[in-house]
Amino acid sequence: MRRVCAVAVERGVAIGAQVSYPDLVGFGRRFVDMDHDELRDTVLYQLGALTAMATAAGGRVTYLKPHGALYHAVADGGHQAEAVLDAVRRFDPDLAVVGRAGSVFGDLTRAAGVRFVAEAFADRGYRPDGSLVPRREPGALVDDADEVVRRSVRLASERRVLSVSGDDVVVHAASICVHGDTPGAVHLARSVREALERAGVEVVPFAPHPATP
Amino acid sequence: MRRVCAVAVERGVAIGAQVSYPDLVGFGRRFVDMDHDELRDTVLYQLGALTAMATAAGGRVTYLKPHGALYHAVADGGHQAEAVLDAVRRFDPDLAVVGRAGSVFGDLTRAAGVRFVAEAFADRGYRPDGSLVPRREPGALVDDADEVVRRSVRLASERRVLSVSGDDVVVHAASICVHGDTPGAVHLARSVREALERAGVEVVPFAPHPATP
Amino acid sequence: MRRVCAVAVERGVAIGAQVSYPDLVGFGRRFVDMDHDELRDTVLYQLGALTAMATAAGGRVTYLKPHGALYHAVADGGHQAEAVLDAVRRFDPDLAVVGRAGSVFGDLTRAAGVRFVAEAFADRGYRPDGSLVPRREPGALVDDADEVVRRSVRLASERRVLSVSGDDVVVHAASICVHGDTPGAVHLARSVREALERAGVEVVPFAPHPATP
Amino acid sequence: MRRVCAVAVERGVAIGAQVSYPDLVGFGRRFVDMDHDELRDTVLYQLGALTAMATAAGGRVTYLKPHGALYHAVADGGHQAEAVLDAVRRFDPDLAVVGRAGSVFGDLTRAAGVRFVAEAFADRGYRPDGSLVPRREPGALVDDADEVVRRSVRLASERRVLSVSGDDVVVHAASICVHGDTPGAVHLARSVREALERAGVEVVPFAPHPATP
Repeated sequence: MRRVCAVAVERGVAIGAQVSYPDLVGFGRRFVDMDHDELRDTVLYQLGALTAMATAAGGRVTYLKPHGALYHAVADGGHQAEAVLDAVRRFDPDLAVVGRAGSVFGDLTRAAGVRFVAEAFADRGYRPDGSLVPRREPGALVDDADEVVRRSVRLASERRVLSVSGDDVVVHAASICVHGDTPGAVHLARSVREALERAGVEVVPFAPHPATP
Repeated sequence: MRRVCAVAVERGVAIGAQVSYPDLVGFGRRFVDMDHDELRDTVLYQLGALTAMATAAGGRVTYLKPHGALYHAVADGGHQAEAVLDAVRRFDPDLAVVGRAGSVFGDLTRAAGVRFVAEAFADRGYRPDGSLVPRREPGALVDDADEVVRRSVRLASERRVLSVSGDDVVVHAASICVHGDTPGAVHLARSVREALERAGVEVVPFAPHPATP
Repeated sequence: MRRVCAVAVERGVAIGAQVSYPDLVGFGRRFVDMDHDELRDTVLYQLGALTAMATAAGGRVTYLKPHGALYHAVADGGHQAEAVLDAVRRFDPDLAVVGRAGSVFGDLTRAAGVRFVAEAFADRGYRPDGSLVPRREPGALVDDADEVVRRSVRLASERRVLSVSGDDVVVHAASICVHGDTPGAVHLARSVREALERAGVEVVPFAPHPATP
Repeated sequence: MRRVCAVAVERGVAIGAQVSYPDLVGFGRRFVDMDHDELRDTVLYQLGALTAMATAAGGRVTYLKPHGALYHAVADGGHQAEAVLDAVRRFDPDLAVVGRAGSVFGDLTRAAGVRFVAEAFADRGYRPDGSLVPRREPGALVDDADEVVRRSVRLASERRVLSVSGDDVVVHAASICVHGDTPGAVHLARSVREALERAGVEVVPFAPHPATP
């Protein structure tokens, strides 16, 4: 973790805490029914540990993004969304928070006076209401790299994506996620970036350089 | 952890990170052969997690003390001692570091420009060289509460303790440890404190109030 | 764990696997959304580990009881109940399975050809439908020891318990649980046993001596 | 783990428990100072968990091999070697135990009435005394695949390997290890096998088919 922070500081890549349920074996992909205090403290624990690594590497953490099952659990609000935001407010209210574009979580984050970065997924299927098709259902993943690139450009320039029902969904996103564990992720990210730039979309970081004080 | 921090802030008790090997099942009582980077990062991880809890409770961490097997592993210096100090320097060089009075670790800490708080144990047997009798050997523990109180007063006022060989050892300590998992620990701590005060020893905190900025 | 098994073998106490979600920090008290294979394998893992401890102590595991959140998650059936039973059938179909008296889980267990031991709780509040009042709700716990004893005798001799609504619920239980982490649990268990015997209820183990081959 | 067992049963590959220190983060590569009972119980725990997985997949565990730092810690005997063998004897004395050819651990295993499978490493440097060059020292790894193949054939047919000092060491091994996490491991294993067969060495499993009762 610290070595990754050191590389990030060296190359000017923003450091964010991708916080999750305490579910190491399941890679945070399983919902865990935690109450407010338990979840807030788990988020604080992870935020703090990463902050120490970043600090030791001469950098700092500038954003937080819920991971895996927690990402989806907070999307529609509720006590778990409140718990995540409680952790952010108590630890560092200047952190940006990344979440699903169009989610209730985004509204709650902004209402809490915290900056929200709305995110879209070029490699995930959308339902007509703007939510993601769950991983266990058909249409959850967009495998074709060219299709992912095309969806990215359309998301950025038209604010729209084709849903699994065949209708367009409006998605106002400030960031497009490319999953790091997708095979060929680095190549895919490069292709998306190049296509965005060719389409006249300026790609800028949503969070500051990690070494800025 | 956070709840404990909240109580500490409320009552003005200093918050310290008692960092250990990543040995949850063994309660940090077993030596683990870690290299410099692994150990430094483990210490950073724990320091950071506790700092987040303290921050969320309106307080801060003001000292670090190696726990269990790590306490003894660093006493005579070596690369693990360096790794612990590396973590402190990178994360917060204003932290005080607690360790065995008379240890090489104390010298290394001071040489690193970090404040060292020398600690003595009223409930542990001492060897003539000032080191502790290992827990698995006879004479490791002083069970009798009255004896612990007497040793505490002598440590504080005469800077001496009787070793298992029957000779006095000189111990220059700024803090006396009463183990929290000793049966009757609260009563014992109270007795030690009262006896120290009766003997004219002023008991003061070695670290600041957790809510001081 | 092995030391506990050794004592159990020495004193003839049955050894059971109280299997739970992989939630060490939360003591298995939180629901975790696991699929069939994940949960079955977690149960197998715990069953196997305890079996090795019991074997090394000259004994064996003779029953399984879901713990904490898993106990409640399986009560009404569903894929998690099936996963637990899949583990039992594959590992040792001669294990007895303990669960809530009157639960769908009991029906599923019997339908799977596995022996079910119906359990009642003398220290927990019952709802009129025979389910337990959740721990977070008022009336969840019966604190008064005398009341627990009275409820135990009535459960055993009349097959009835007073629910939180004030109506009697019929509960056909072969075992009454006294929680080991209730303060005064040992004294309470002794009182329950004595009261049962005074009431003419014969108390017998539901599982064989751990050292029987 | 269970899925791997299922594949092993299907293809007739022996299932062995590669037991290690409880050091998940360090992948078992760090020495942990455990006493006899702690280590025996850790080994039992892992043996039992894998046995349940194998049983559920219709197979069984037929051998045990210490992993990582434990492999080296037991090589010269001592209380940790005794602890591993204590676990084997208590759980299943018919297990074969794999360890370094020429080690004291081999002698202790045989003296305990347990079958020992002596192992050699074609991709590791040897010291003149038959021990392995530690991973942190130069010459620890043999990177060149052709060299690994040549060393394998010589180990099997001449019972010798060239040490880092330039002298031959005699190694009486019944098994040659190819590390699964070496890049190109599958190709390497295939090359070693083909070379052994070309050299007239018959390759046979040292442990029975997992589905044999």
